[in-house]
Amino acid sequence: MRTLASELPGKVGTAVSLSGWVHRIRDLGKVSFVVLRDRSGSAQLVFSEKPDVTVESVIRVEGTASANEKAPGGVEVRVEKLEVLSAAAVDLPFPVNQEPGKTSLESILDNRMISVRNPSILSIFRVQSSILRGFAEHMRSEGFSEIKTSKLIGTGTEGGTGLFAVEYFDTRVYLTQSPQLYKQAMIASGLERVFEIGPAYRAEKHDTPRHINEFVSLDVEMAFIESEQELMDLETRILASIFTVVREANGKDLEAWKASVPDPEACVRIPRVSHDEAREIVSKETGRKAFEITPEGERTLCDWAQKTAGIDAAFVHGYPRKSRPFYTFPADNNKTRAFDLLFRGLEVTSGGMRINQYDMLVENAKTFGLDPAGLADYLSIFRYGCPPHGGFAIGLERLTQKILGLGSVKEATLFPRDRKRVRP
Amino acid sequence: MRTLASELPGKVGTAVSLSGWVHRIRDLGKVSFVVLRDRSGSAQLVFSEKPDVTVESVIRVEGTASANEKAPGGVEVRVEKLEVLSAAAVDLPFPVNQEPGKTSLESILDNRMISVRNPSILSIFRVQSSILRGFAEHMRSEGFSEIKTSKLIGTGTEGGTGLFAVEYFDTRVYLTQSPQLYKQAMIASGLERVFEIGPAYRAEKHDTPRHINEFVSLDVEMAFIESEQELMDLETRILASIFTVVREANGKDLEAWKASVPDPEACVRIPRVSHDEAREIVSKETGRKAFEITPEGERTLCDWAQKTAGIDAAFVHGYPRKSRPFYTFPADNNKTRAFDLLFRGLEVTSGGMRINQYDMLVENAKTFGLDPAGLADYLSIFRYGCPPHGGFAIGLERLTQKILGLGSVKEATLFPRDRKRVRP
Repeated sequence: MRTLASELPGKVGTAVSLSGWVHRIRDLGKVSFVVLRDRSGSAQLVFSEKPDVTVESVIRVEGTASANEKAPGGVEVRVEKLEVLSAAAVDLPFPVNQEPGKTSLESILDNRMISVRNPSILSIFRVQSSILRGFAEHMRSEGFSEIKTSKLIGTGTEGGTGLFAVEYFDTRVYLTQSPQLYKQAMIASGLERVFEIGPAYRAEKHDTPRHINEFVSLDVEMAFIESEQELMDLETRILASIFTVVREANGKDLEAWKASVPDPEACVRIPRVSHDEAREIVSKETGRKAFEITPEGERTLCDWAQKTAGIDAAFVHGYPRKSRPFYTFPADNNKTRAFDLLFRGLEVTSGGMRINQYDMLVENAKTFGLDPAGLADYLSIFRYGCPPHGGFAIGLERLTQKILGLGSVKEATLFPRDRKRVRP
Repeated sequence: MRTLASELPGKVGTAVSLSGWVHRIRDLGKVSFVVLRDRSGSAQLVFSEKPDVTVESVIRVEGTASANEKAPGGVEVRVEKLEVLSAAAVDLPFPVNQEPGKTSLESILDNRMISVRNPSILSIFRVQSSILRGFAEHMRSEGFSEIKTSKLIGTGTEGGTGLFAVEYFDTRVYLTQSPQLYKQAMIASGLERVFEIGPAYRAEKHDTPRHINEFVSLDVEMAFIESEQELMDLETRILASIFTVVREANGKDLEAWKASVPDPEACVRIPRVSHDEAREIVSKETGRKAFEITPEGERTLCDWAQKTAGIDAAFVHGYPRKSRPFYTFPADNNKTRAFDLLFRGLEVTSGGMRINQYDMLVENAKTFGLDPAGLADYLSIFRYGCPPHGGFAIGLERLTQKILGLGSVKEATLFPRDRKRVRP
């Protein structure tokens, strides 16, 4: 019967069997210490002679759990039997047991199969797992159904640019940029409230710490709403749920990155400013006229929100029409009923009310230079009755990045794909 | 304040506002009845004169909830005010308010944007949403972390056949057939127990009711196990959880398909037979020598399991080596430690113990005609210590299909992709 490292404090004086990875070896001559790592944490093993193992080997030991004030957790295991389940070669390409701070992002990603074993790096993905849980559980608690839609489409939803082509038997299809079409069909199906967690693709040549070409999109769509304010209300509740889960489940992981999650109760204070107001705030804060909200402007806005509302996030709504997809519900003065959420200086969400009237949608498609004939499947949703609705998408990796304060979104992606990287 | 159809019984005698789709209109001259559909069910609306609406239009009504024994649920709404939120054209391409039994699969899929509104068809995807919930919740209850890995890879895991190519900037990558590589890296990362829900692709030219070219794979991988029996134990618990959730949440949906979910407690009785035993059983049951387990043989085996164990499912283990991928742990006599789960006559799971020893894996790759140099990233997982482990993948659409007794897996796929179908 295996004992996990975290269970040791309850086992003092008893025979135990532990399994895990050799994290560190310290040979003091008369005695050797081995730090064993398992999914629950780590344990100190004491050997009366130097064990014949290498760092990262997977071992199983039997011994006695003994109290020792100096051992982590106050307990160590005096090993009586050692079995090497899988021996690690000595030319480890990545220093698993050192703080990753000194290692370049390139080296971390080139050696991803091994670098992910580093406890600090691995903690990123424990947090990501909690975000996924918090999101899905929240959506279900509000009666949303989970959908799974195709990632292969005949043509682009938002125009044909930025798509990766797939050779599909005798034809050619594209990887979806978002499940937009499908989630609209599914709110109109009668489900009314849907969410989807799935990959999305952007064939953009960006090479920045905020872009990846494949990301996980946490998509939400809701029918019978009257304004985009209800969507911001919903996202506020989702964020509070995610922050609550991460706070409860990932204390040690947050510590590894000296990160803290916003107070879930502070989410209701996230300011909601129009795009025009946002430009004014940025102009005032920086002393320089802001014509657009640049990445720097996004940081300025979040700093302003922290100062004035006590939370490092801001909703920006009322974006200009030309900056939003054709299905965005228009507002007066060439504005839209779309919004973004900026969190800790980065856009992590885009969303808004969608057009649900067939004629208006056809007109808008034309204005955007799209051929309605190519949108026939999509337009049928609206031709046969579609409720007022809207939705948004949260970028999983960006949210993970910003919760932990990581320098690049690629750090928050298990196997990131960018213009140059398609492995491992 | 909106009232849902399902809430009407508690509202008799009060003013209510309902929103939804016009499911059916019955005009009796002096009075008209409209069945309104919303996410909770349906409600009978009574109009004192014929309302100017079309089927599938989205409406909002205000009126009084009134008891009427003859109305569904014992309550109807006498409408005082009608607002058409989105009018449906009259040339509806699919009969939303009729039983789909009479409609061809081609017509259902060609008109998917609209056919999914049919209550029976939509119920398939309510069940699927519950399966997703039951699976994820179960995995988390056993300490599994959820991972999200790339669907774009440089080369195939299981050899280079059956892959769709993607034009990726100046190079060419492939859509993954499974997250196999990555889930193995992640159990070896120290997470030990991982699951992933994501799309998987098979560029196979099959055109059968059991094949689609894009499907959702419910992937599981677990470290520190000693045999494939533990994997079958785990899958047994997962199935019991999924069946429990579907039974509790989807009573009406199951009814729509006259389907029943196996007793969750019966899952532990699922027989486990070796491939050789399976062939003997099929031979005996059919009176014809079975050399392979064909799709017909799979049905025979499940019938046999129903007869002998009271559940329409069987685990088959000990498959021959040549029929399994190179990373499968070998057993004596050219067998493997792999298994399948057959459920109601269809393979819904493949899995098994994996090789965790570097040398054995390199040898096996060569035996399978693979070049170890092309597997360098993958092999590094094993070169630097990998615990004994195994896992499996459940096909979401096949499981949905078999729970509901649908004729084709495509019915259980929102937007199926097959050799000829890439839309909508």
